[in-house]
Amino acid sequence: MKSPVTPLGEFALIGRFFKEASEAMLAAQPHSVALGIGDDCALLRVSPIDELAITSDMLVEGRHFFVDANPEWLGYKALAVNLSDLAAMGAKPLGFTLALALPEADANWLQSFSKGLFAAAQAFECPLVGGDTTAGPLNICITAFGNVPKGLAIKRSGAQVEDDIWVSGTVGDARLTLAALRHELDLNPQDLEAIQHRMHQPSPRIALGLALRGVAHAALDISDGLLGDLKHLLEGSQKDAEVYLDRLPKSPTLLKQAIHFQNQFAASGGDDYELCFTAPQRLRSKIEEIGRTLQLPLTQIGRIKPMQSERAVLTVLSADGMPIDESQTALLLQSFDHFA
Amino acid sequence: MKSPVTPLGEFALIGRFFKEASEAMLAAQPHSVALGIGDDCALLRVSPIDELAITSDMLVEGRHFFVDANPEWLGYKALAVNLSDLAAMGAKPLGFTLALALPEADANWLQSFSKGLFAAAQAFECPLVGGDTTAGPLNICITAFGNVPKGLAIKRSGAQVEDDIWVSGTVGDARLTLAALRHELDLNPQDLEAIQHRMHQPSPRIALGLALRGVAHAALDISDGLLGDLKHLLEGSQKDAEVYLDRLPKSPTLLKQAIHFQNQFAASGGDDYELCFTAPQRLRSKIEEIGRTLQLPLTQIGRIKPMQSERAVLTVLSADGMPIDESQTALLLQSFDHFA
Repeated sequence: MKSPVTPLGEFALIGRFFKEASEAMLAAQPHSVALGIGDDCALLRVSPIDELAITSDMLVEGRHFFVDANPEWLGYKALAVNLSDLAAMGAKPLGFTLALALPEADANWLQSFSKGLFAAAQAFECPLVGGDTTAGPLNICITAFGNVPKGLAIKRSGAQVEDDIWVSGTVGDARLTLAALRHELDLNPQDLEAIQHRMHQPSPRIALGLALRGVAHAALDISDGLLGDLKHLLEGSQKDAEVYLDRLPKSPTLLKQAIHFQNQFAASGGDDYELCFTAPQRLRSKIEEIGRTLQLPLTQIGRIKPMQSERAVLTVLSADGMPIDESQTALLLQSFDHFA
Repeated sequence: MKSPVTPLGEFALIGRFFKEASEAMLAAQPHSVALGIGDDCALLRVSPIDELAITSDMLVEGRHFFVDANPEWLGYKALAVNLSDLAAMGAKPLGFTLALALPEADANWLQSFSKGLFAAAQAFECPLVGGDTTAGPLNICITAFGNVPKGLAIKRSGAQVEDDIWVSGTVGDARLTLAALRHELDLNPQDLEAIQHRMHQPSPRIALGLALRGVAHAALDISDGLLGDLKHLLEGSQKDAEVYLDRLPKSPTLLKQAIHFQNQFAASGGDDYELCFTAPQRLRSKIEEIGRTLQLPLTQIGRIKPMQSERAVLTVLSADGMPIDESQTALLLQSFDHFA
């Protein structure tokens, strides 16, 4: 699910509006909701043993994908972004529903969309269980379900002072792909080929989420940009943090680009669907072991600090340990809107 | 969720396409799906005690509601139709997600939509737990969750030979309302006032669904028209049935109309969201007691018969016990498309 602050200011307000109405209702009557709106997933109490994690995303043509998007990639990505929300909670996928509005029943498009969708479903063992199809402007709404043992869901609100802040994989390649497609910079065909799957077919970090149960204090997935999303985690946890800009993990392809592109794309690129999580320093070797087991680099990029004012503050440090200037920080924290 | 056969032939094919792909995947790998695509809800195994019922509906402007629809009614109905699917399975609502695409952030529209949505949420104790809001052509996708004790979900496939066929409440008023609004017939303002809530704010029969656990053999909710929907139940159960046309329960307002309107609207009107269910004859007094307790008329309209050919057949009988002619039957069985 989207965080309350998105590039679309007024739609963020709508989200906040529904969140408040939901909270008022939950406060007024008994219910089975263990966690409501505002995290990567909601949690429902459905069993004495497990909680059910639920996430829903609506993808609209022209807003979340281009009109001529490859339907196979689109099918894959539509499910993958929901699975990424399950991963961020430490939930194991159980199934998903697909509601699809289509302007016309185009057999080739559907065949291809379905191929991508079921490729993701099979790769992450998350079967399609129901849904709806109707005529209408192209709209893809997927709701995904996962289970997580009671009390082990990894929320945005759990970060503790002195926790390490970690990021999985590398960040910035989805944004670099878009930059190449938009001719914002030149990328040779081999380099584009090497990274474009990061934008089109992101890998939800399900196995990592499962391994982080009982290890990470807090987590979220990086959909809008690493630093902007980390800011949401800090707001959820009511903590400050320091992050070293030089430590953001980048692919060899991104490392070939000009330094300002490297920093901007890694910090605020979005669409990478890596996990950002916090964990106590004493578990550092445990986390390194998880990375080795999963063959997924895990990089420690900073530290959680006590909150110094009424609002959570993320300080970005340069290599010498000094904060970078405020205007640059603001730029790096800005969530990236692929369709702005 | 929509039944596989809808007024939109080609979109029905799409539904079938996803259903087959889903079944192929479920056959090939272990999973937690107790019931997949094709019933009112899917069922997930989430607990040693309960199953989770899931349903998803996508409502598109111009297709499922009019462009100038009253947003309060729309909010109410968008949730109510999903709750009706839970009711049809005998599931108790736990919560729902809302994904909403809006062309613009219109505060008045949202206030009103939200008022209707939360009115239904409170009335049926089903809190909003998450979702997504985005810019795009108006599209409302709700996914609702309920729980039902293991083995007690009421499926479409459970009807037994010699079961009674029952209908709750009255049918046809939603279609009569539409006919009045479309000037297909004249209805005085008092009569319209008396029935129009049936179209705009349908009552999901949650309490009835719960009371029918362990009583009904099969059930579904009436969204597309009583006889057309009953046909889906027969196909799911692989049974034939006989129904007495004169027994279809009608409101006093519908009973004032010409007999051909009465029959057509009650049999095929759709949008009533009553339950149609089957139960053994020995439970007739139990069912009458449920109706009295809930102050909801329950009417026995026919009987389940053994299947005589390769396809389930629904025979409609006139008052003298003779089948009405085939072309009239076909007309009564035709699902009604409000936007055809």
